[in-house]
Amino acid sequence: MSAEARVVNGAVNSWKQVIARADKAFAGLSAEQLQKEVAPGKNRLIYLLGHLTAVHDSMFAALGLGERLHPELDAIFLSQPDRAVETLPSVTELQAWWSAVNARLTAAFAGLTAEDWVQKHALVSEEDFAKEPDRNRLAILLSRTNHVSFHLGQTVLART
Amino acid sequence: MSAEARVVNGAVNSWKQVIARADKAFAGLSAEQLQKEVAPGKNRLIYLLGHLTAVHDSMFAALGLGERLHPELDAIFLSQPDRAVETLPSVTELQAWWSAVNARLTAAFAGLTAEDWVQKHALVSEEDFAKEPDRNRLAILLSRTNHVSFHLGQTVLART
Repeated sequence: MSAEARVVNGAVNSWKQVIARADKAFAGLSAEQLQKEVAPGKNRLIYLLGHLTAVHDSMFAALGLGERLHPELDAIFLSQPDRAVETLPSVTELQAWWSAVNARLTAAFAGLTAEDWVQKHALVSEEDFAKEPDRNRLAILLSRTNHVSFHLGQTVLART
Repeated sequence: MSAEARVVNGAVNSWKQVIARADKAFAGLSAEQLQKEVAPGKNRLIYLLGHLTAVHDSMFAALGLGERLHPELDAIFLSQPDRAVETLPSVTELQAWWSAVNARLTAAFAGLTAEDWVQKHALVSEEDFAKEPDRNRLAILLSRTNHVSFHLGQTVLART
């Protein structure tokens, strides 16, 4: 494998590792356990699960990888803070969507070369990208990976 | 710039962004503010600052980038949990070491090519690396970047 393919592989592996950690943090939690807050008065685990799913679902459009699966999540888990919306999707639904979104993203990543990763993402204009070529798909991948880690650091506070 | 160099650039940029966020989270905090816990009974901010500095200082050896600056931090911030050691380095010292370690690492990263990044790191044996070539320097960089994000997610709980 070329150095080019290996560096891309490294970035995708980092995503996979962090997703696996998040799977572990959220999988198999009961509806009651998902009501726990990461700190007093802060986000509940169920909100973080929905929030991460919404953010990852929005990556399909940002990366030009097709239609997203659950645009309805944004109104609950992105544009509103926790507890603003009273009725959330069920735990079973959220856990299934989390897995499905990540599985489809990860499968799509497998087909991308280094050249694909350094292309413009959909959230930046052609003009801005010409000036700032670092605003590419890879930057989205690495930023979203760190975003999961950010919230994972919070989930461990709720659970121990 | 080649796609290969851009991917590497993206990984180093991600590190820089996360370090800048951590700088913001810790810079200018008073000794009293650094005594805050991220959640009741959990790590204090000052411990996280020392912990992250110790982990980053150990990256010099892991990445083969020269001698580390503060090996004495491990006994306080890595092998022991918060509050196990009574007397910590001063806040001024910790903040200066945090900046110095990261500045030196980031400067060293600027000299590494994609080929350098996919070389074996020092924490894996030649045999294991032959079987698992993904255990390279880039994996350490991405993993440590996510480690900062993990703890950053906690620091915001203490501060808001």
